[in-house]
Amino acid sequence: MPPGSAVDLSPEELRRYAHEVSDWIADFIAGVESYPVLPDLKPGELSRGLSLAGPEHGDSMDEILADFREIIVPGCTQWNHPGFHAYFSNTGSGPGILAEALTAALNVNGMVWRTGPAVTEVELRACDWLRQWLALPEDFVGHIEDTASVSTLSALAAARHRGTEGRVRSEGLGALPPLRVYCSEEAHSSVQRAVVLLGMGLDHCRTIEVDRDFRMNPEALEEAIREDRRRGRLPIAVVATAGTTSTTSVDPIPAIADLCEREGLWLHVDAAYGGPMAIVPEYRWVLEGADRADSLVVNPHKWLFVPMDCSVLFCRHMNILREALSLVPPYLMTPEDDVARNLMDYGPALGRRFRGLKLWFVLRWYGLERLQNLLRKHVALAATFADWIDDAEDWERVAPTPMSTVLFRHRPAGLKDESVLREHNEGILTRVNAAGSSFTSHTEVRRGDRTIYALRMAVGNARTELRHLESFWKTLRESVC
Amino acid sequence: MPPGSAVDLSPEELRRYAHEVSDWIADFIAGVESYPVLPDLKPGELSRGLSLAGPEHGDSMDEILADFREIIVPGCTQWNHPGFHAYFSNTGSGPGILAEALTAALNVNGMVWRTGPAVTEVELRACDWLRQWLALPEDFVGHIEDTASVSTLSALAAARHRGTEGRVRSEGLGALPPLRVYCSEEAHSSVQRAVVLLGMGLDHCRTIEVDRDFRMNPEALEEAIREDRRRGRLPIAVVATAGTTSTTSVDPIPAIADLCEREGLWLHVDAAYGGPMAIVPEYRWVLEGADRADSLVVNPHKWLFVPMDCSVLFCRHMNILREALSLVPPYLMTPEDDVARNLMDYGPALGRRFRGLKLWFVLRWYGLERLQNLLRKHVALAATFADWIDDAEDWERVAPTPMSTVLFRHRPAGLKDESVLREHNEGILTRVNAAGSSFTSHTEVRRGDRTIYALRMAVGNARTELRHLESFWKTLRESVC
Repeated sequence: MPPGSAVDLSPEELRRYAHEVSDWIADFIAGVESYPVLPDLKPGELSRGLSLAGPEHGDSMDEILADFREIIVPGCTQWNHPGFHAYFSNTGSGPGILAEALTAALNVNGMVWRTGPAVTEVELRACDWLRQWLALPEDFVGHIEDTASVSTLSALAAARHRGTEGRVRSEGLGALPPLRVYCSEEAHSSVQRAVVLLGMGLDHCRTIEVDRDFRMNPEALEEAIREDRRRGRLPIAVVATAGTTSTTSVDPIPAIADLCEREGLWLHVDAAYGGPMAIVPEYRWVLEGADRADSLVVNPHKWLFVPMDCSVLFCRHMNILREALSLVPPYLMTPEDDVARNLMDYGPALGRRFRGLKLWFVLRWYGLERLQNLLRKHVALAATFADWIDDAEDWERVAPTPMSTVLFRHRPAGLKDESVLREHNEGILTRVNAAGSSFTSHTEVRRGDRTIYALRMAVGNARTELRHLESFWKTLRESVC
Repeated sequence: MPPGSAVDLSPEELRRYAHEVSDWIADFIAGVESYPVLPDLKPGELSRGLSLAGPEHGDSMDEILADFREIIVPGCTQWNHPGFHAYFSNTGSGPGILAEALTAALNVNGMVWRTGPAVTEVELRACDWLRQWLALPEDFVGHIEDTASVSTLSALAAARHRGTEGRVRSEGLGALPPLRVYCSEEAHSSVQRAVVLLGMGLDHCRTIEVDRDFRMNPEALEEAIREDRRRGRLPIAVVATAGTTSTTSVDPIPAIADLCEREGLWLHVDAAYGGPMAIVPEYRWVLEGADRADSLVVNPHKWLFVPMDCSVLFCRHMNILREALSLVPPYLMTPEDDVARNLMDYGPALGRRFRGLKLWFVLRWYGLERLQNLLRKHVALAATFADWIDDAEDWERVAPTPMSTVLFRHRPAGLKDESVLREHNEGILTRVNAAGSSFTSHTEVRRGDRTIYALRMAVGNARTELRHLESFWKTLRESVC
């Protein structure tokens, strides 16, 4: 048996190991650039270092922390590395790390107000700070889900409830005409996933064509709705995106909001990545029209320096969200049910971790001005990189750069065949990522009837500086062969 | 502006505050009994101490941590307090706290294997350790969701997919006969919530009667299925429970498994609370027959000392789960897709926090034997408390005590009216919880045609000792008036 109390680490052990972990974390963050961003591993390789069965008698924290350092950390893709440019780059910031440690120690579950008054009230208040900074109207009430996928799922569940006048809750979809949800071809896969989960069927998630800048075409949307109504289908919701995942395009939300109002459809805005930009006055355009949405999702774990996981769902119809999702058995009824918000009522999960604490820590420590400056810096860094691409021979950008993500590819003079270009750029991507100093990803975009394979560089880590992009650019050029 | 770097806490600041937080955590855990378990607060009271708007220039960590100590902590219900007996009592153990701090620092997102090889492989391995300890067959593959609600939602999505031969995914439920899901009257509300979310409709979640010990009646289940088939409805799944939330009853899983096999129905076992008991040889009966299930959920954040949130969904048909839930846009395709498991494919969320780390830390540090002994101790403590109730005049148990949760009430001689008894026991509950040294909750159980209000005492915190129950019992008796 390892030393210490049989029921948990003793307070002395906990103190000692917490200090050891604190030093490790400070050293890790200070030295994160010494790790390759993408580990050089094949699937299954790491597992060979992990015991096939759990220990009979328990291992000491010394052994566990040694394995953590020697096996786990080198097996992580380093999302906190300033050279991380894949997907959407993010940050587990210091204030957020501290909050997460405290959250685990409190271990409070805020399913109802009573089981965690601070969980509920800090979460609602921190979300309201964010609402104010995003210049959204007061009737947008924010709460936290784990990911934008689950926020969008919840929003579409509310839309489905309203669109069927509540019938879906008791009767299910079998007795109803096919419900239709609309989003652009460039919308995130979570919209389709939500439509599948909600039982509406992928065929009924209608993807609307985009313009050459990857923004939903509102005339095509209007025509699709009209056609569906003619055919006896029941349109219920439109998902507009402010910052699509592939190209960071922004749908024309004002025109879509007009249409949703005329047609009585729920408008959900997916601003998971792009939303935070609206805290900067000169970038407020990204949420233009979103004040007329029924719901909107923003992920502070993406571009607001909050550690995974923290997705804020703003909704103007909390009663509908609750009617769509809530089920309260007698053992969960509490004396405060009529006067307090029980956050279990607004999403698929019952138990709720104290995620609001890290949001509150991060927003407080950074403050609005510093966050604005960081976002400005990231947008400027991406613009600089876009300029390099535009100015370089044989490189081309393949989409506009309205945010902090650049889509580009290498196109040697004379090379026109898309499949050859794809293979050529896949090779570059493989070599860049193998170099270790950065990690980037890819996407596909449509240009006319062609599908173009593009590299995709995102800036979003708090520690990313110009020198990281210079190094990335150098590595990129060296990776052409 | 607070001191320090503009982009994050500096490494020196992070080190200093991490040490400060470490001391706070060690002191908190050592002194947790000095807090009232349930804070003396009214809804909205705590919020008055929170600024109405976020700070323009950021606050210092000193200010933030001071507010944390002075406003947040006193506003938390103390789930880590050994006098917490409400709902299901749990533990944010030391090894789990350390792992959560490290998880936040790494901030790795394991949506696909490549974005976090260690996230994927440690999660799968730790879940497999648990599978072995639960004596489940090798083809049960475990992964982590946030809560049992989401695990059950995912399992029923897979059941719905199989039950409709995949048609639901593309066509939705509109073109299909009404699908039916079965669970007992005592099943957790998450089953009904999942049926609502999945679009099947609450009317089609058929609750089956229970015996006097609150276990599903398999004959009634068989009859319900037969009747539904006669009426053209399509039975797809049965949810059996090993440890119901209200009374901790265990459904007769072997008989239900027989029926599911005969009828071709998906059997999902909700062992969120009760499952861990099966790591103790003499309690293995709680999962008898569960080796024949299609899926099973166990929550290590309930009775396995892992901090919130950690729910393990075991599934024998990972391909069906993936077909039911997965959507992979081009930008999420990776070179390893054919050889590695991408955990984003098996639940509603795309982004995935490194939850496997805390499970691995906790299982390793405790080891099997120590966990077995803790569970034995908790079951014995509950049995002792049950004996006190049984032996006391004017107190009665209102359900069997197969696990670590006791249902009971005060029934003064001559008092028979259920509404008077309810009011009498509600008063006791209010006074017990106001005393501060413990927190317990209530439930309702059916006895014949009566609904009985019951107090409900759960043992599950690693630090709960006999003296806590003695104190609770004393407070209970003093609260009768």
